[in-house]
Amino acid sequence: MSPALPSWNDGDARRALLSFVAAVTAEGSPTFVRPEDRVAVFDNDGTLWAEQPMYVQARFAIDRVKALALHHPEWHGRQPFKAVLEDDAEALQALSEHDAAALVVATHAGMTTGEFRRQAREWLAAARHPRFQRPFTRCVYQPMLELLDYLREHDFDLHVVSGGGVDFLRAFCEETYGIPASHIIGSSGKTRFELRDEGPVLVKLPSLTSLDDGEGKPINIHLHIGKRPLLAFGNSDGDLQMLQYASADGLPHLRLLLHHDDAEREYAYDRDARAGRLDHALDYAASDGWTVVSMRSDWKDVFPVQ
Amino acid sequence: MSPALPSWNDGDARRALLSFVAAVTAEGSPTFVRPEDRVAVFDNDGTLWAEQPMYVQARFAIDRVKALALHHPEWHGRQPFKAVLEDDAEALQALSEHDAAALVVATHAGMTTGEFRRQAREWLAAARHPRFQRPFTRCVYQPMLELLDYLREHDFDLHVVSGGGVDFLRAFCEETYGIPASHIIGSSGKTRFELRDEGPVLVKLPSLTSLDDGEGKPINIHLHIGKRPLLAFGNSDGDLQMLQYASADGLPHLRLLLHHDDAEREYAYDRDARAGRLDHALDYAASDGWTVVSMRSDWKDVFPVQ
Repeated sequence: MSPALPSWNDGDARRALLSFVAAVTAEGSPTFVRPEDRVAVFDNDGTLWAEQPMYVQARFAIDRVKALALHHPEWHGRQPFKAVLEDDAEALQALSEHDAAALVVATHAGMTTGEFRRQAREWLAAARHPRFQRPFTRCVYQPMLELLDYLREHDFDLHVVSGGGVDFLRAFCEETYGIPASHIIGSSGKTRFELRDEGPVLVKLPSLTSLDDGEGKPINIHLHIGKRPLLAFGNSDGDLQMLQYASADGLPHLRLLLHHDDAEREYAYDRDARAGRLDHALDYAASDGWTVVSMRSDWKDVFPVQ
Repeated sequence: MSPALPSWNDGDARRALLSFVAAVTAEGSPTFVRPEDRVAVFDNDGTLWAEQPMYVQARFAIDRVKALALHHPEWHGRQPFKAVLEDDAEALQALSEHDAAALVVATHAGMTTGEFRRQAREWLAAARHPRFQRPFTRCVYQPMLELLDYLREHDFDLHVVSGGGVDFLRAFCEETYGIPASHIIGSSGKTRFELRDEGPVLVKLPSLTSLDDGEGKPINIHLHIGKRPLLAFGNSDGDLQMLQYASADGLPHLRLLLHHDDAEREYAYDRDARAGRLDHALDYAASDGWTVVSMRSDWKDVFPVQ
């Protein structure tokens, strides 16, 4: 048998993971946890795959605006669509949350969940990361894929808990991470049930029902999983409450933050970042003894071999 | 090996279940379905356990009002509390949905999800069904317990999809049905994340975010499971859209309605019922070939042996 977590350097982070898994799986030990309680949660953007220079779903929405612009001549004169259509990088950087939501709504609402899935999968198959020149689903982190496998082998119950839209996440998470659709939690919008000639469908509507970020993460973990996680892995302030929540009564727990400190192989950003800002959570990690994973020193490799 | 589904009489319903499971598990056959797609959904009230003469959760709310009345002298003069405190059966029968919601809110909101779970479990351990004089968790249907086991043995992925509150359901579903917390879908309310001295908690708030009934069932199935069910089992008009939704593209499916036609062993009600009304769904069953399960003629036993 090859050693566990081969893309992880032998440092504090790898040792913390190995000894945590050994502790909760040691039958008869006071730290033993039954398999049904071994809940582990992972943020996606910046934790399982690259989130720089822009969230992947934002890029998808931008490409959809361009594809749909032919049918929307009025967009050429109206923000935020104008910025997208003119590739105005400065204006795009300055997009408010409201503007970003307008883009997502304009491109995602009105279609059935089945049509959306088809479009997202087609886009993911064709799109390439601007710097790494590979599909976004190959800009996932090799050490994290190994960690998911390692936890699965030890009967952990794995869930993705992401600020991204749940329908977008499900278009790739099952194949990419081996995590089933029912274990993918994300932001979600209203849908409407319609009985059409071809059968029942759900139509995506323009209003958000749950923003799965910050406090929304533990709230959705309770709603969808109904148990507290033992292990939580994030990379930004949006994951702070999820990591705090990883503390089931009397059970051992492990909280991890990925620190993007590797401009050479990926990106380096934390307290000043726009996307994936890591500020308060880094303070908590220091004061509460959370495990900070350094991309530069803890990971032998970043991405899977092409 | 003993025969499958021993509490089911050898009739159309049992044969439909056996032949459906045989079809989707026959490797190499065109009707074969991969285990990860064998999603089965079950309503709870009136499908897995008795819902007459009153929904169990309504009874819980009523008992909570009585327990809390000492601290709320004003309730004695105010409806719907007055009706509860005076055991005014007629006024309770006439409760509007708004009144029922007021009771649930008054008794469920303000506490943490952990406190609520503890209270619900204590109540379920002590309360008895007024007619059958056994705990409500023993007023589950023996043939349905056997069906859950049978489907589990054939690698189905089982979910409860109930109009009841998800926190109430989780207080007993795992032990009673062997279905894990993450596979329990119910109505849900807002919660607030609080970081207290003893750690993070979620506080239940008085506003409903999702009513898991009617259209809400397929909408929540999509949100929580992300796949269409192959098999759906309900007993009322509130299950109609869930049964319609059990029709994954190109996969076989089976839709079942439990018909309460057994006044002697349980209850007999359908088109005129207040709780668990079965009217439109019965028409659909006739026109679309859904399987109607007669409690009186399809079930050898109704409840588990004490």
